[in-house]
Amino acid sequence: MDPLVIAIDSSTTSTKAIVVDTTGRILALGKQGIDLLSPQQGFGEHDPRQWWTSTRDAIGQALSQLTPVDRQRVQALGITHQRESFAPFMADGAPVRHGILWLDIRATEQVERYGSAEIHALSGRPADVTPGLYKMAWLKEHEPQSLEKADKVTTVSGYLTFCLTGQWADSAACADSLGLSNIRTLDYDDGLLSIAGVRREQMADLVKPGQGLGRLRSELAQEWGIEEVPVIAGCGDGQAAGVGAAAVSPDIAFLNMGTAVVAGVPSQEYRYEKLFRTEAAGVPDTYILELVQNSGAYLSSWFRQALGRPELAGAPDPELEALAAARAPGSGGLVTMPYWGGVQSPHWDPIARGGIVGWRGTHGKGSMYRSILEGTSLEMARSLRKLESSTGVALKEIRGMGGGMRSPLWRQIMTDAIGLPITSCKEEEISALGAAVIAMASTGVFGDTEVATAASHMCHVTDVTEPNMDNHEIYTELSAIQDRLYGDLREVNALLHDFSRRHPDAELTGVED
Amino acid sequence: MDPLVIAIDSSTTSTKAIVVDTTGRILALGKQGIDLLSPQQGFGEHDPRQWWTSTRDAIGQALSQLTPVDRQRVQALGITHQRESFAPFMADGAPVRHGILWLDIRATEQVERYGSAEIHALSGRPADVTPGLYKMAWLKEHEPQSLEKADKVTTVSGYLTFCLTGQWADSAACADSLGLSNIRTLDYDDGLLSIAGVRREQMADLVKPGQGLGRLRSELAQEWGIEEVPVIAGCGDGQAAGVGAAAVSPDIAFLNMGTAVVAGVPSQEYRYEKLFRTEAAGVPDTYILELVQNSGAYLSSWFRQALGRPELAGAPDPELEALAAARAPGSGGLVTMPYWGGVQSPHWDPIARGGIVGWRGTHGKGSMYRSILEGTSLEMARSLRKLESSTGVALKEIRGMGGGMRSPLWRQIMTDAIGLPITSCKEEEISALGAAVIAMASTGVFGDTEVATAASHMCHVTDVTEPNMDNHEIYTELSAIQDRLYGDLREVNALLHDFSRRHPDAELTGVED
Repeated sequence: MDPLVIAIDSSTTSTKAIVVDTTGRILALGKQGIDLLSPQQGFGEHDPRQWWTSTRDAIGQALSQLTPVDRQRVQALGITHQRESFAPFMADGAPVRHGILWLDIRATEQVERYGSAEIHALSGRPADVTPGLYKMAWLKEHEPQSLEKADKVTTVSGYLTFCLTGQWADSAACADSLGLSNIRTLDYDDGLLSIAGVRREQMADLVKPGQGLGRLRSELAQEWGIEEVPVIAGCGDGQAAGVGAAAVSPDIAFLNMGTAVVAGVPSQEYRYEKLFRTEAAGVPDTYILELVQNSGAYLSSWFRQALGRPELAGAPDPELEALAAARAPGSGGLVTMPYWGGVQSPHWDPIARGGIVGWRGTHGKGSMYRSILEGTSLEMARSLRKLESSTGVALKEIRGMGGGMRSPLWRQIMTDAIGLPITSCKEEEISALGAAVIAMASTGVFGDTEVATAASHMCHVTDVTEPNMDNHEIYTELSAIQDRLYGDLREVNALLHDFSRRHPDAELTGVED
Repeated sequence: MDPLVIAIDSSTTSTKAIVVDTTGRILALGKQGIDLLSPQQGFGEHDPRQWWTSTRDAIGQALSQLTPVDRQRVQALGITHQRESFAPFMADGAPVRHGILWLDIRATEQVERYGSAEIHALSGRPADVTPGLYKMAWLKEHEPQSLEKADKVTTVSGYLTFCLTGQWADSAACADSLGLSNIRTLDYDDGLLSIAGVRREQMADLVKPGQGLGRLRSELAQEWGIEEVPVIAGCGDGQAAGVGAAAVSPDIAFLNMGTAVVAGVPSQEYRYEKLFRTEAAGVPDTYILELVQNSGAYLSSWFRQALGRPELAGAPDPELEALAAARAPGSGGLVTMPYWGGVQSPHWDPIARGGIVGWRGTHGKGSMYRSILEGTSLEMARSLRKLESSTGVALKEIRGMGGGMRSPLWRQIMTDAIGLPITSCKEEEISALGAAVIAMASTGVFGDTEVATAASHMCHVTDVTEPNMDNHEIYTELSAIQDRLYGDLREVNALLHDFSRRHPDAELTGVED
């Protein structure tokens, strides 16, 4: 009988569990929500017990859809997860405090104090508020006992591994997102541990992606009616999405048009540059060069909530898309710097702010919305081209995924901006599929244990969006203008940052995607 | 019996006629529309015959509301009008072609070619597309016969004077807006006439404001049932509004919060600077230093039309005002450069474009609308302060007028931005009242013929808006940030101007105020 695998994707809002066969077909899906906690403005936390309860319930929910015979076909369990988030635990798995999430921005001061080109070179991560490193440094100052009394400080993946297997172990391609690893060796770095205020023995043991983290505890195996299968080390959700898209060679990028817009390009060698952050890939001993723009579909949601039709309550609005689609590329000279939430790639500046420039009386709602979609697309296109120059490898295809792919307008604008075809991935649960691919590869069912081999069997694409090269030329021109804006507005941004600290105001408290 | 006067205000959209007594009370009002013609994008024309038919009908309409006895009390007729607009005529008053209006922007090339600091110093007018000079130069190149065959080339005021009196005469404080006058002597300048391609004998004879232009033609006097009263030289509608507000001393500015935001400060001496344009005042031998921002209430209208509630079709929206009023000054660090239609004061740059900078996800519709109101207000406040430094005379009061005064929010923002009380003028037809004041002064009814004396009898104010000095301090800070934007974005503006010429697009074709 063909093997099946279970894959878990534990994200910021929910944990999903899928059961997948060797063709990549998803036989069953379970999904359980996780409550986002925000005890203060800018803080984002989870109760880590929900990481586990949502996982256990989602797996149970998925497996309940299988026959007992099919349950016996399950041969491995793979994990992917929200990166950079962590919590401190006692040896028995009891959390010492809530988990602090990637989106938590409390540690801006620590980023300013510790962030450096050296840490970027060492960890692959530009100075930025997302990695766990700086938030641990925050705890060291503000809640030292939370770290001191903890037996383990680990990622979502590390904690789920403990709950599933009883072992404090983690994938090196999950733990790297904490920013504590020497990304060349994928081992923890003593200097980084010291900045974070944690000791080496507090960290989970690391294995390479595709290796076993331990076997499923027997009581769980019994509860679910499956074997005591190996739990396989996966990777962070970004890299897993690339695996799920079979973007495993350096001339294919994956592009996730989600709340954030994230693109990744595989690399055999370690590289670092301000433009991107470098992640340990799901393919062992390789890397993902990752471009991150935090304002992607977020900005469309923001527009609809702030300026759209109130009766739609921020839901997608076909009329708005039609208005924007009727505008010419460049909307007659309106250009958006999409830094509503600061900027990661390419500037890594948390105090940067958005700008819409070039207004004339001939612009309307469709022009503004189109300019916002163009703003996120032009920036990503430019970054991908810079990445190509940097690696020397020309991209030949983009594998697209994420909710933004459902907007034909945004997808076409992105395609035209990049000037390369965007192929649409069939599977929506693309990160979970990536974790399933890694787990399935480990079973050897395809003759070897290569991730690329498994991906070629399990990942499928649907339609292709072709670029309009006339529009590409127009966008290349507009992109050069957009590229100036950050520098031109840098001082005004700093002044407005300072102004808004002293004179705060918030009309919207949270934009839902 | 106390005298009455008729005053005409012929504007871009209509001609109004009022009958006014010595207390400034308006006894009767007539109003007739004028059709705006736009034969090409950027062209704005009138059929000049409508200047006269609308005037004749508006006067007839107003006088029909009086008793025959009161009609006999009319002792003078005053004129104010849209400035800068002109048309060529045959000696009998037949128009050679349509009139070309102040808002027509066909002559940008001529402004670039002929505009200079010398012409500014000579005519009081910075290089800008509004004065008639550059549009006559356009005609000289594109339609030479229109100027060559004309017996007279004159303003709306000049043409109405001909229709009313049979004389080709005009006020020097009306004709100066053509940009053909030496503003020190108020006579036409031969060099400027030569650039325009017109001859001195084609121009109307000039008299000072308050002087007689001629007597009303007997057939009109009979038609209307009034005496053959003198038609009194007035001034352009901007200066007339200042007279109507009794802003006739150099420490009182008038502020018209209309489609454009215009402020004027009287000056005994001729001054010129890039900041302002200099007009011949309604008070003879004095000047108005005039700050002009073409995007005033225009921008509120644009916002409501582009991004407001569609069911209101651009009409004022109390909900929107309330959303904006609930925001803190500075909207948490959002700042608007209000150049949707280029900029006059202080930069005089027709290709400048608008910008909204400082966006964060916490901003919403109210933040954006407030930022736009703040944008127009901060710029005007800064320009007024620069004007004070330039003249050395501290302003002690602002006399407010125009449709924008009906928005308590915008009025308060403007007051807080300037940091001086804004007194509201009682009369809405403030330019027409100014022309009435000049006409009434000429009758000598107040013992002398001084405009200031008549204004003190006829002009009335209502409530005063006091500045919140805490907000003023915040706005002073935000203003310094806004002040940088034009320079910071100058190159991007030029690039976007060039881009939009080659890749034009227009979602909105005309914003109605």
